[in-house]
Formats: sequence, C-alpha cells, structure tokens
Amino acid sequence: MQETRLDIDRIRAARRVIDPMYLDTPLYCCEALEPGLGCTVSIKLETANPVRSFKARGTEVVASLLAGTGSRAVVCASAGNLGQALAWSGRGRGLDVTVVASRFATATKLDGIRALGARLELVDGDHETARDRAAAIARRDGIRLVEDSLDIETCEGAATIGLELVAAPPSFDTVLIALGGGAMATGIGHVLKALAPEVEVICVQPLGAPAMTYSWHQRRVVTTDATDTIADGVAGRRPIAAVLDDLLLVADDAVLVRESSIIAGMRMLLDHAGLVVEPSAALGIAAILEDPERFAGRHVATIVCGSNVDPDAYRRWIDAPLHRP
Amino acid sequence: MQETRLDIDRIRAARRVIDPMYLDTPLYCCEALEPGLGCTVSIKLETANPVRSFKARGTEVVASLLAGTGSRAVVCASAGNLGQALAWSGRGRGLDVTVVASRFATATKLDGIRALGARLELVDGDHETARDRAAAIARRDGIRLVEDSLDIETCEGAATIGLELVAAPPSFDTVLIALGGGAMATGIGHVLKALAPEVEVICVQPLGAPAMTYSWHQRRVVTTDATDTIADGVAGRRPIAAVLDDLLLVADDAVLVRESSIIAGMRMLLDHAGLVVEPSAALGIAAILEDPERFAGRHVATIVCGSNVDPDAYRRWIDAPLHRP
Repeated sequence: MQETRLDIDRIRAARRVIDPMYLDTPLYCCEALEPGLGCTVSIKLETANPVRSFKARGTEVVASLLAGTGSRAVVCASAGNLGQALAWSGRGRGLDVTVVASRFATATKLDGIRALGARLELVDGDHETARDRAAAIARRDGIRLVEDSLDIETCEGAATIGLELVAAPPSFDTVLIALGGGAMATGIGHVLKALAPEVEVICVQPLGAPAMTYSWHQRRVVTTDATDTIADGVAGRRPIAAVLDDLLLVADDAVLVRESSIIAGMRMLLDHAGLVVEPSAALGIAAILEDPERFAGRHVATIVCGSNVDPDAYRRWIDAPLHRP
Repeated sequence: MQETRLDIDRIRAARRVIDPMYLDTPLYCCEALEPGLGCTVSIKLETANPVRSFKARGTEVVASLLAGTGSRAVVCASAGNLGQALAWSGRGRGLDVTVVASRFATATKLDGIRALGARLELVDGDHETARDRAAAIARRDGIRLVEDSLDIETCEGAATIGLELVAAPPSFDTVLIALGGGAMATGIGHVLKALAPEVEVICVQPLGAPAMTYSWHQRRVVTTDATDTIADGVAGRRPIAAVLDDLLLVADDAVLVRESSIIAGMRMLLDHAGLVVEPSAALGIAAILEDPERFAGRHVATIVCGSNVDPDAYRRWIDAPLHRP
C-alpha cells in the first residue's frame, strides 16, 4: 500500500487517550438480517455511548491533545454528531467548545450540543457554510479549528474501529463504510489495507450527496452545488483533497444509494436487528439492498455509526409505505 | 450478608466460559433521559448481541458444562429469550436443543428459536404449562432440563453483569432490575451486596405478573392464577422457593409498575436513548416514572435486558396515545 496520512502506531496510541466507554464496541453477527439480504451481516455498533455516534473516538484524541498543551478553546463545524462528541470530550477536559451548524440541522443533534454545554452558533446555509464560519471564528479568536476528516486526529479516532474489526474473528469479505467527509472511510480503510488487505473496503454515499464518490471515481475533487438527502451526517459538497488522496489508496469502491434504500435499510435494522439508526448508519445495508448479487453469500460487516434521529422524523421513515428498491 | 446460593469465585469463573461477545457490554450515562426522569440514568445494554438479550450469559455457562461432560441434548421452557440463547449456545457446542414455549409467546422470539436450529414445541397454556412440559420431556428422554433461575448457572451467568457494574466508575446509588423468575435479580443482587453493599437493589415487576414481588414482600412463595402484561419475559405465576430465599437476602425492595408506565418507558428509551427495548427491559424506567421523588437526584443504573419485540406490536406501543402515569 502507498502511504496515506495515517499510521498504525499512531492509531494504536490513539486508543490510549480515548475514554474506554467509546472503545471495544459490540461486533456481532445478526442472522435475522440474512434472509432479507442474502449475505451474512455483522454489525459494528457505535451508538451505545453518551453521544450516540462514533465521533467521540476522534474528539477524544483532539481534546486530550488540546488539554495536554494547555489550550482552553476549540471550534468546529458539524452536522451534529461531531459537535456533540466535541462538546462531550471538551467538557470533561475543561475546554470551551463552540460548534457551528446549519440551522437546518437535525434538531435532536442541536439540542444535544446545547445540553452538553457547548456554545452553538447556527448559520443560514448548509454544512459548507458552517465550515466557513467555523474557520472564521478560529481565525478571529485564535483558537483551534477542528476540521473533520482533514484533521488527522479525527481519522485516527475513527481508525480505532478498524483495529477492533481486524482483532475479531472471523474476518470479513467486505466492510461497508458510510462516506461523508471521509474520516471513517480513510481511517478504517487504512487499518484494513495495512492489517487485513484481503478485506474489500466499499464506501457508500447517498445519490443526493455524491461529491466524494464522484471525486473518488474521477480521481480529482468534484464539488456539487447542493445536497438532497435525509442522511444529514454525510451531506457534504466540497471534498477535501488530502482526504480524497487517502481514500484513493484505501477504498476498493465507492457506491451511491437511493433515499428509498436508506429508508428500507433503517427499517430492516429496526425490524430485524432491533436497532435505531440514523440515515447515514443505514448506508451499508442500503448498498446491499441495491446490489444483492454483488454480496450474495459473502460475510459483510457494516458500521452502524450513529443513532441521532429526530423522533418524529424517525417514526415517519419507519412507518412510510415502502417500495423496495 | 447471609449466604445465597451464589458465590463470587464461581461467578468470576463463569466469565471465562462465556463467549466474549456477551461480556463487557456497553455501560453509559444517558443524559437525555435526565430531564424526563429527574435522576441520572446509566444504561447497561444487553441487547447488542446475536440473541438480543442477556440470557446467553447463562446459557453459555450451561452449554459449556454440558459439552464438557459429553452431554448431547438439553431442554428448557422459555418465554422466548432463554430459548434463543440456549439454541445459540447449544448450536456452537453440538448440543441438541429442545425449547418448550407457550403458543402465545412473542412470534419473533419463536421464529428466532427455530432459526437457530432448536426443536420448538408449543403448548396450549402459559409459561408455567411450558415449564411442566419441559420437565416431562427431560424425564422421558433422560436429558438435562435447564430451569431458568433455579439452575445456578443461569444465575451465575446473569451475575456476571453485576461484576461489570461494580468494575465501572462511578458507582451507582441504585440498580433497577427486571424481576421475573429471579435469575437476574439474585445474580446481580448477590454481586452488588458482596462487592458494593452501599448500592440499593430494587427489583421491578409488572402489576400484571406480581407473583415474585408478592412473595418477596410476604417472605413466602405466593402464586397467582394468571398473568396480564405485555412484559412477556417476566410473566411467571409460580415463584421458585430457593430463588425467593436468595432474593430475600439481596433485594432492598421489589416494586410493581403499571402497563402504561412500561409503554411510557419503552417510548422514552426510543425517543431519548435511541434504544429499542422489549417491555421487560423498560421496567426500570417505568419504576422511576411511577415514583420520581424516590429517585430524584440519584444516580440509577438499569439493565436493558432484551430487545426482542414483534415489529408490529412495537410500532403500536410506541405510537399509542399516551397518558403519563
């Protein structure tokens, strides 16, 4: 493998600064999903923790470094999960956390950020507008900007999931990873390519937010003008070049899925696995639903990366009349 | 503490024969529950595993002992979760597993037992009828009968949850435990009283299946003629004397909750914790909802012990108009 920005020793070191509550998450085979999907599915569950997503693995690394250097404040843009995670990690280390988010972000996530004691600033616009605003605040106040997927700590934190995947028997044929900014895909992908290169790494993004997938296929940064997806956690428009470079080295494929498949995936995980998941966390199941022949008879692992949903929206999704993709 | 049938060294030994997939389950504070409950609530999550309940901790102990002595077959009565767990544990060890259940048991649980390769026999009647039939099969075939809560391995398996509770900082003021046959309550209760005696142990049972709670308060076995509760996992009518004796030594209280509180608890866990739980797993939250003053300002842990629900019934429960208890 050519060199990505990641390093296995640094990822192993990251484990030592992450609160154990976020490590060694459940990994188990869910046989009840098999009849509907035609393949063996193992779940890596990243939702059973105080922030209900995998993001705290990265923010724990960031916050422990900042606290170690005497920093007092930090700012990030977030669709909601990074913000909650940074608020949680910062609170425990005496950091003053500011989160910038779109005013159209999932209300439950915004409530969670406030409840954890962070300062929340809302912008008119989408996640890219929030990124610009967070960068401006960091410059103005001279404080650390946490840029998800660009900042190596966010990738290293996510990559600790990869260490847990390769530590567990049995090994998988394929790992399906939700693709947004790319921290999770490049982090886990790096570990798999380094320690279990026989495992196929497939990234999954919504058709309504395809910028990074287009970029991966064209091997250059492709931006889009807008996003249109319920998968708020992965709805970016401006991929980061350095992250794309890493993704090109570790991903075997990047695929796009329809909204109807994401909803069908959420419903399958509820009905057959008893799991509440946010749309981004159903992308892996959606990919299987859209291309069952590709995965037939294989052992697939997918990371259930978050469960922060608005209760009313969730009820609509799971109750909506469904036409299978 | 007077001596129960349990022993800490044996419980520690049990950990060594249980598949690690069932151990060291998530334990985390769910702050989003706090505003609605008025106390700090930590969740011990026993649903993120192949059988979606804590029961495999006990069946792993049973099955490993049976396999070690060359046994080939085993039978149990089950409301559904023990049966799935025994089927899972037996399958991996070449045991021929028979499960007897009421034909009115939760369909998803019965499907799960069949899917795991066990022989399923349904009886006309309730769980107590199934217990009688399972005992008859064991006598007829000369095979091991697993009696939940009476057989010490089932208590020791459940008690490993207690070891994990006392290993984790911070300690809790109170642990709320669903009460059915009593394996979980006596197992966890024993560990808490032995290793963290300052922690209050409160058992929770539905008003519609109160036999063990009545027995605890009257300090003698009290049976009932029928049960009427959606909490199928704890719906027994004939408490076991030896289990009651242990429970009298380790429980500080046993309380009864209404069906409306169980449903409200299930809904709170969905909306504020993103957790699908079966009714029995919501008993702890229901107890807080019914007596908020008792728990105000305290740190309460509750074991989310199972998530096996029929999807349609679950949707009815979480969508039903709700009058708060």
